[in-house]
Amino acid sequence: MSSSEVRASVLHGAKDLRVETRTLPAPSATEVQVAVQATGLCGSDLHYFSHYRNGDIIVREPMTLGHESAGVVTGVGADVEHLQVGDRVALEVGLPCEDCALCKEGRYNICKGMRFRSSAKAFPHFQGTLQERINHPAKWVHKLPESVTLEQGALVEPLSVAMHARDRAQLKPGSTVLVLGAGAVGLLCAAACKASGAKAVIIADIQEDRVNFAVQNGFADVAIVVLMARPQTIEDKLAYAKELAARVISSKAGAGDEEVGEVGVTFECTGVESCMQTAIYATQAGGKIMIIGMGTPIQTLPISAAALREVDLVGVFRYANNYPEVINMLPAKNAALPDVAKLVTQRFEGLDKIPEAFDMAGKVKDADGNLVLKVVVSM
Amino acid sequence: MSSSEVRASVLHGAKDLRVETRTLPAPSATEVQVAVQATGLCGSDLHYFSHYRNGDIIVREPMTLGHESAGVVTGVGADVEHLQVGDRVALEVGLPCEDCALCKEGRYNICKGMRFRSSAKAFPHFQGTLQERINHPAKWVHKLPESVTLEQGALVEPLSVAMHARDRAQLKPGSTVLVLGAGAVGLLCAAACKASGAKAVIIADIQEDRVNFAVQNGFADVAIVVLMARPQTIEDKLAYAKELAARVISSKAGAGDEEVGEVGVTFECTGVESCMQTAIYATQAGGKIMIIGMGTPIQTLPISAAALREVDLVGVFRYANNYPEVINMLPAKNAALPDVAKLVTQRFEGLDKIPEAFDMAGKVKDADGNLVLKVVVSM
Amino acid sequence: MSSSEVRASVLHGAKDLRVETRTLPAPSATEVQVAVQATGLCGSDLHYFSHYRNGDIIVREPMTLGHESAGVVTGVGADVEHLQVGDRVALEVGLPCEDCALCKEGRYNICKGMRFRSSAKAFPHFQGTLQERINHPAKWVHKLPESVTLEQGALVEPLSVAMHARDRAQLKPGSTVLVLGAGAVGLLCAAACKASGAKAVIIADIQEDRVNFAVQNGFADVAIVVLMARPQTIEDKLAYAKELAARVISSKAGAGDEEVGEVGVTFECTGVESCMQTAIYATQAGGKIMIIGMGTPIQTLPISAAALREVDLVGVFRYANNYPEVINMLPAKNAALPDVAKLVTQRFEGLDKIPEAFDMAGKVKDADGNLVLKVVVSM
Amino acid sequence: MSSSEVRASVLHGAKDLRVETRTLPAPSATEVQVAVQATGLCGSDLHYFSHYRNGDIIVREPMTLGHESAGVVTGVGADVEHLQVGDRVALEVGLPCEDCALCKEGRYNICKGMRFRSSAKAFPHFQGTLQERINHPAKWVHKLPESVTLEQGALVEPLSVAMHARDRAQLKPGSTVLVLGAGAVGLLCAAACKASGAKAVIIADIQEDRVNFAVQNGFADVAIVVLMARPQTIEDKLAYAKELAARVISSKAGAGDEEVGEVGVTFECTGVESCMQTAIYATQAGGKIMIIGMGTPIQTLPISAAALREVDLVGVFRYANNYPEVINMLPAKNAALPDVAKLVTQRFEGLDKIPEAFDMAGKVKDADGNLVLKVVVSM
Repeated sequence: MSSSEVRASVLHGAKDLRVETRTLPAPSATEVQVAVQATGLCGSDLHYFSHYRNGDIIVREPMTLGHESAGVVTGVGADVEHLQVGDRVALEVGLPCEDCALCKEGRYNICKGMRFRSSAKAFPHFQGTLQERINHPAKWVHKLPESVTLEQGALVEPLSVAMHARDRAQLKPGSTVLVLGAGAVGLLCAAACKASGAKAVIIADIQEDRVNFAVQNGFADVAIVVLMARPQTIEDKLAYAKELAARVISSKAGAGDEEVGEVGVTFECTGVESCMQTAIYATQAGGKIMIIGMGTPIQTLPISAAALREVDLVGVFRYANNYPEVINMLPAKNAALPDVAKLVTQRFEGLDKIPEAFDMAGKVKDADGNLVLKVVVSM
Repeated sequence: MSSSEVRASVLHGAKDLRVETRTLPAPSATEVQVAVQATGLCGSDLHYFSHYRNGDIIVREPMTLGHESAGVVTGVGADVEHLQVGDRVALEVGLPCEDCALCKEGRYNICKGMRFRSSAKAFPHFQGTLQERINHPAKWVHKLPESVTLEQGALVEPLSVAMHARDRAQLKPGSTVLVLGAGAVGLLCAAACKASGAKAVIIADIQEDRVNFAVQNGFADVAIVVLMARPQTIEDKLAYAKELAARVISSKAGAGDEEVGEVGVTFECTGVESCMQTAIYATQAGGKIMIIGMGTPIQTLPISAAALREVDLVGVFRYANNYPEVINMLPAKNAALPDVAKLVTQRFEGLDKIPEAFDMAGKVKDADGNLVLKVVVSM
Repeated sequence: MSSSEVRASVLHGAKDLRVETRTLPAPSATEVQVAVQATGLCGSDLHYFSHYRNGDIIVREPMTLGHESAGVVTGVGADVEHLQVGDRVALEVGLPCEDCALCKEGRYNICKGMRFRSSAKAFPHFQGTLQERINHPAKWVHKLPESVTLEQGALVEPLSVAMHARDRAQLKPGSTVLVLGAGAVGLLCAAACKASGAKAVIIADIQEDRVNFAVQNGFADVAIVVLMARPQTIEDKLAYAKELAARVISSKAGAGDEEVGEVGVTFECTGVESCMQTAIYATQAGGKIMIIGMGTPIQTLPISAAALREVDLVGVFRYANNYPEVINMLPAKNAALPDVAKLVTQRFEGLDKIPEAFDMAGKVKDADGNLVLKVVVSM
Repeated sequence: MSSSEVRASVLHGAKDLRVETRTLPAPSATEVQVAVQATGLCGSDLHYFSHYRNGDIIVREPMTLGHESAGVVTGVGADVEHLQVGDRVALEVGLPCEDCALCKEGRYNICKGMRFRSSAKAFPHFQGTLQERINHPAKWVHKLPESVTLEQGALVEPLSVAMHARDRAQLKPGSTVLVLGAGAVGLLCAAACKASGAKAVIIADIQEDRVNFAVQNGFADVAIVVLMARPQTIEDKLAYAKELAARVISSKAGAGDEEVGEVGVTFECTGVESCMQTAIYATQAGGKIMIIGMGTPIQTLPISAAALREVDLVGVFRYANNYPEVINMLPAKNAALPDVAKLVTQRFEGLDKIPEAFDMAGKVKDADGNLVLKVVVSM
């Protein structure tokens, strides 16, 4: 296999995506070459697209976006044994250093030397997956079984975040769970909990359609719509959070119409301060709050209300060792997992349509009034 | 509430069950009185019934059998707050000492001072539940939601064993699981794994009907029928176990017809030496074998084949703190759990029918050719 | 044994402690009667003494203080088997409900129904131990071996807090540890870490004498003196915390004079906001912050700096199941534990001296210039 | 740096060790070259030396022995950042595949593709460390602080086994521990437990000198000498094991001369069937048996006596991620760890003395009557 040309979508500035041709070398001995066929757009991609930055991280050179991808193997390095041309695969796009203590212990997601595709944190930037073909180390390429579609394959990445959160929560079957935020990550956290035997999953959002979607499709049992309120003082903010927590705890589920009661684990997927405050009040003594949403970096929190009841605040950053288990859970026959493919609400085909896809990803609903949950670009 | 008379089924010798009248005092301040309405018959009950002993434990005075029971509260002690007359409940029939270090740490199932109904281990024996009404400490009586039937309530006890095994296994979603033995406990272990997101549950038994039942009803994905073999030497025994393990690992599941591969956790529910040997060979490096079946107390095992691969042999004795989570998982709407009510294959009504019920419980199939999995006595 | 009269120290208002005579009934069947002989004074006692309240909790009836006590058994209830008259014992003074799910799981420290001696949270208040004799449930009375003094016995309570923190931290031998606050609890956390094989324990405080005490007596390896700073804006506060964290990480320990590097576990024992902020910056990716100090209940924290590196904020409230292990660790021969008896810096004898003892407990140093770490009242 | 010649000790057959000259290439970009200066001899080395095999594993080509080594860096590959010439280091000699799920999860010790120096399991054999210099991947080379000697550095490998066992045991401070076998690994397990706050470490062996050594040097608190008995039937064997377990439990420790009571964790370091049987009877309900000793691969065990009390049989194979923590614990100032350097009882200098060193390693005592615990070859 020799080098070849591929077309790639390259970001040159805010909303300035250009399709360019790159030379792709043959895959090295330990790499495979993959024709990228389905890529989900993520919030971080959208930030880069819209602002040429993501929070504090500024793009410093043209960069291809995309990191939730599945495709088909088109080339295989000499030392690769577990993959062959034609295999359908999901890409795990973060490459840890493999040298540090955290890597050796299996917590490679928090490796300081991590290079992650479509993130501008490291320089030179590690280019994303929104290109026709890509070379990637075979050890981070996971084969999909026949019963899993490529579109499902593109969901393996965000579902891995949810499963990693579930793992860190050590969620027990029969638990009551609260999910704050019914975007793609929140819905996938809800799905991961349902698949793990949670008794009742309560999901809350300011968008009524989203929480209804969750309940109607088996991702959650109880929908709570939160009105946007803007309390100003810290006293008012905490009073508001307590009120919301009380609503959660007194919400009803099940045939017996019983109150769900306090919550064993809360998955905070919004990054909003008032949600973290609510999480602290809604979670029962001895419970856990999983911090998944990236948002307000500095928050004023009723920390004693957590600590004195041993409610732990547990960080969740991406995932480690979750792709295999997620791929194992995806086949349709696994009744425990809701049908996550329903999250794909809009589809765009071809590199030229990517700017349009990002425009869509920034909306709450499309022109037909459908929710926008996960936009997938196929090629 | 004053004392009253109740009829009870009392075992006086092997196969000598008599219906007798007992005086039941009013429940004490911390007790409730429960009208027992559904009781599953367990293997240990059957041993006592058939032999007036259970392994080394010999019955020393007339004893009422039964410990898998649900019923309705008919009386409430003065200090009881969480229950009232008319509540439908499941009985947790083991009373730990509540004083020892294990009790204080929450591992009350292995408390040395445990008194367990219908077990002849302690003397005087702690009488079982096969009587019209019974007084029991309210803290060990668990309310059932409306959507759970009393027959399901009678299954809470054996399902708690399965969930305790799952907990000790720290089963991760996406795992491949092997269950050895497709009797009631094996089937419930399989169900607990399905409800916890296991990828593929393989179940093996010498009864073809049982493993077929498991797959047809969503308890397991792969059925393996094992022929009775009787190797004589240890070499032949281990060769036989290796062969069986190879069959397990190369069994196929899923649309892609892929081999399931090595097993993360094995639930050994037979107590048979050759099954433990098979478990050791079938379980992957770093996996766990849950020892649930009570059988041959002294076994010759290829212990290095386990230890050198860090396959741990983990004991499972009854359950601790599992009733609430099991009750939370039972409602029909919880799609993650297969319909465990299908385990109840034969029903008998009234104290007078208990000998007949035990006769049935000792059979593999009933007169109509139906499997005998769990016999329930209703009153 | 019949009822008798005992003298007790009773708080009637701020700084209004009176010695009064009470009638003490004979111990019930499950209680023992203990002659209290050594009682450490705790910060919460001091708050009640000084203000007749402790934070939000207001004293509503005369209350005896004291909950860190050891003594000698003087009477034994009929059902008590593990204790006899003359036994030297440590009192575990919190009585959980023993009914709720948390109690059954062994996390009785966060039981909502907990009654804790010398706390005004529940009403009527559960009287403290600063009285001549006291009846207490035998299951919460722990025998001391001969080699442990009663004064050490009075330290079992605060050392249990430290060991519970260590347990929740799942501290690994060889770890680098940071302790913020070198009061009694901070020093005992440091001791618990040294006894658990921590590599380097860094201790920081605004009192130079305290951190020097820690290092000189083998509780810690590195002393950091923190100057009181009062940054006003959140930006300045976080800059200050980052600076302090940098000082911690670049502090040197060991013969090789190497930097200690990032910290695996931080024990936050001050309750001060700037310390929590420092903890977040000083703790390495994947580490834990144990929240032990009770202080500012609402804090503004750089929560993303924790969550994105999976630094978990773990609450620690009192202790559960720690008395036995602490008592096992106390004998002088256990070289792993520093000599915790050195924490007892001032002693007062007799009920009449208790007001004087509390005055001392409120000071940083006594008249002779000695540190005040733990004041013990003997009787 | 260019290739050079080194002298190596090479095993050509049973007891046929020859000093030969090999060409050593320059280290690759990710390797360092280390002058090996201290190597401890291990039981597996001794088996290869004596029989040209180790159990089932037969040597198939000339092989250099040695895998417990420390030395000084003499060359550094271009990409190596954390080491430089002159650094004193300990070698971690097992190279896992770094591709499989177990490697990615941090359990690389049980990687199927592991290549381990001086083991003949893989072919071609991965040559051992008993040579003047060696190239080794820098990521598996650990820097020693100045306060750690090279001889201590050679003990990092076996001490890592002990710490890995301790980790898998989740040993809690204050525990009572039983160590079966007082050879080097048993003594190091005892040391690891003392350093982790164990209350009482009981050590048992058939060699009185060894257990006395353990107690006199602070590795253990209680010494038990076991007479060699040879019961023939399984009944007699188990009766013998029960008797020995009773001796363990009733042994006395501490100033108060109290019985140590049941054992929380047993470290089985002999591989002898009667020891495993004893371990099962001596370990308390809810405890763990760590299987460390490699010996009889097929054992007849009272498995129900373990399972019914939830005594888990936990395999321990080598170590993973333990070198850094062990190196952190070694400096003399860490009072928690007994002085493990005392384990080095005989020393031999130079490649020519290696056969003599192996002869010594096979003895129980040397000519002067000193115990033979760990023989170290320096170069």
